[in-house]
Amino acid sequence: MPDDTLHVLGFAGSLRRASYNRGLLRAAVETASADVVVTTFDLSSIPPYCMDLEAGGGPEPVRELKTAVAAADALLIATPEHNYSFPGVLKNALDWVSRPANSSPFIGKPVAIMGASSGRFGTARAQVALRPVLASLDMLVMSKPELFVTQAEKVCDEDGSVVDQATRERIYDVIRALAAWARQLRAG
Amino acid sequence: MPDDTLHVLGFAGSLRRASYNRGLLRAAVETASADVVVTTFDLSSIPPYCMDLEAGGGPEPVRELKTAVAAADALLIATPEHNYSFPGVLKNALDWVSRPANSSPFIGKPVAIMGASSGRFGTARAQVALRPVLASLDMLVMSKPELFVTQAEKVCDEDGSVVDQATRERIYDVIRALAAWARQLRAG
Amino acid sequence: MPDDTLHVLGFAGSLRRASYNRGLLRAAVETASADVVVTTFDLSSIPPYCMDLEAGGGPEPVRELKTAVAAADALLIATPEHNYSFPGVLKNALDWVSRPANSSPFIGKPVAIMGASSGRFGTARAQVALRPVLASLDMLVMSKPELFVTQAEKVCDEDGSVVDQATRERIYDVIRALAAWARQLRAG
Amino acid sequence: MPDDTLHVLGFAGSLRRASYNRGLLRAAVETASADVVVTTFDLSSIPPYCMDLEAGGGPEPVRELKTAVAAADALLIATPEHNYSFPGVLKNALDWVSRPANSSPFIGKPVAIMGASSGRFGTARAQVALRPVLASLDMLVMSKPELFVTQAEKVCDEDGSVVDQATRERIYDVIRALAAWARQLRAG
Repeated sequence: MPDDTLHVLGFAGSLRRASYNRGLLRAAVETASADVVVTTFDLSSIPPYCMDLEAGGGPEPVRELKTAVAAADALLIATPEHNYSFPGVLKNALDWVSRPANSSPFIGKPVAIMGASSGRFGTARAQVALRPVLASLDMLVMSKPELFVTQAEKVCDEDGSVVDQATRERIYDVIRALAAWARQLRAG
Repeated sequence: MPDDTLHVLGFAGSLRRASYNRGLLRAAVETASADVVVTTFDLSSIPPYCMDLEAGGGPEPVRELKTAVAAADALLIATPEHNYSFPGVLKNALDWVSRPANSSPFIGKPVAIMGASSGRFGTARAQVALRPVLASLDMLVMSKPELFVTQAEKVCDEDGSVVDQATRERIYDVIRALAAWARQLRAG
Repeated sequence: MPDDTLHVLGFAGSLRRASYNRGLLRAAVETASADVVVTTFDLSSIPPYCMDLEAGGGPEPVRELKTAVAAADALLIATPEHNYSFPGVLKNALDWVSRPANSSPFIGKPVAIMGASSGRFGTARAQVALRPVLASLDMLVMSKPELFVTQAEKVCDEDGSVVDQATRERIYDVIRALAAWARQLRAG
Repeated sequence: MPDDTLHVLGFAGSLRRASYNRGLLRAAVETASADVVVTTFDLSSIPPYCMDLEAGGGPEPVRELKTAVAAADALLIATPEHNYSFPGVLKNALDWVSRPANSSPFIGKPVAIMGASSGRFGTARAQVALRPVLASLDMLVMSKPELFVTQAEKVCDEDGSVVDQATRERIYDVIRALAAWARQLRAG
């Protein structure tokens, strides 16, 4: 039944073709079940934010992203860490969708965060910087479980696809928890 | 019926007798209704955190705070801003109650933040620093409404009590929203 | 003498034509003296960061920005606040110039931050989020004076130009302090 | 000559007797040379901050800490990570010494940060949270090198003393860089 399937929209903060974080999202899509379906939005087409371009809902790709966010039951963000924070590419997309402030499709949306890096800290700092930004948008950020994939090259192949089974299980745990979180909020 | 009353525990990040943030909490207590009752815990008695003192649940005031947190349906934190973040006094109490990590009474607890300062930024930076800390404790932080009381000396008397009616209404809005947030999470 | 003039490169985190922060930068340019000259770089041309495009130093506008940063004695960033942090547009430019990590022209560069918003907090949260990012790039961030322009529409005209004399003086104070900071670091 | 020796004051954010971070500081003390001498201050005696107790410079241990900070050429902070930030114990000491704001001995003081944790992230989040707080105090925070000691139990003995030679070398690198940073700022 349509009502019983939870629709999750995922997007990644990296535009690199073989990005580990895009790989995390692909793994998320592959975990789809009767309960939860994950689709993704590619941020490559989102231009730099400029308020002068906001009229009419903004450029076409921005309007498409807003529509996809509005249609989703929950969001899933996969973020790299650049310079101790999350990428400008991700913040730029958030800035676009946050506008106009009082009618953003982000308001009240359940969201989970995960991240992968080639380093040893697994985007820990990016995620801690991202949380208050999402809260400012009135999103309902899932607190646990968190997913910090370190040394991502060891669990991904050269296309960025997650080949390590334990890591795939942890991605599945995040999605299952996100679905439960979204359902808890909806029922309440 | 007892089950219908939501019990909120409030504590302030300032120990000053005439603290504006203690004043915010007193105003919160005074808004009590049949639906929501706010009680407070004074952090003055909480000693500096030391892991060597953790055995047996920690010093007596820490055990009392943990018990009070565990008994509450939701928490309400009133924080000053010191040096662009929230006070050490508040972080110290959080550090104590967070231990041991897997059985902290903070886990899953709904919480709201408010703050007052004599400056013009109304603890905006303290609150943005506090949010990811609360999320790390697996607390369920209410995103909106927020309350930033600026130039607190204009809405409080010399004892720190909130005498401005508009500010009192905003405190009441926070509590009502916190009660709704806690009930939404409980029902879900 | 050329050696005695300090060259400051300024850029703004807003692409809006009548942006208050671009206005702050224009005021900074107008304060130029024999001691300090401020030029600006427009981030409009910087595309979304993608590691796949890094080869050869990146797209032409990115190479130009890197060259301008390398040639400057100090940097001056004017940032809006979007969603409790600094804009994706600004972070995106930082992400580009930070690469490759061990030869970024940001390394060791003195930098100052200022910001303007139409709200009452004057980019306080954006600036506190920006500081650790700049430090991660090994930039030498000036700590004081800070400049938080609140209710910018009251001190700027409809083109975003700063018409309030007191605000212009505060911008001049920032530049003078930045020049002193850069000279102190160079002499040491 | 006395003028040629740089005096560094170190303090740790942990009060635990066998703390890894106290161990880092002891290692720092042991690296003392003719150029740099490190002494430490134990924060155990610093009471919870209360503005009502500020008169006369605050409690005796606070006055002693302020005097020690004022006498030092540079500061060295060793911080654990508690709940994705630095400990309340450390923030509390900073809050005390920051007062009164316009005459704090922190103003203009060079400072370096290091940290050790038993986890895999080595206080990365604590350090990123600490930097803007130190900058707000007008301290001159060294940006690099950074020191994140992960899985500290592998490089420390049961008393928390650093027995791993490579880690000791990295501590020595931090001190040498801090001395150079302090001398650069003083000469400028």
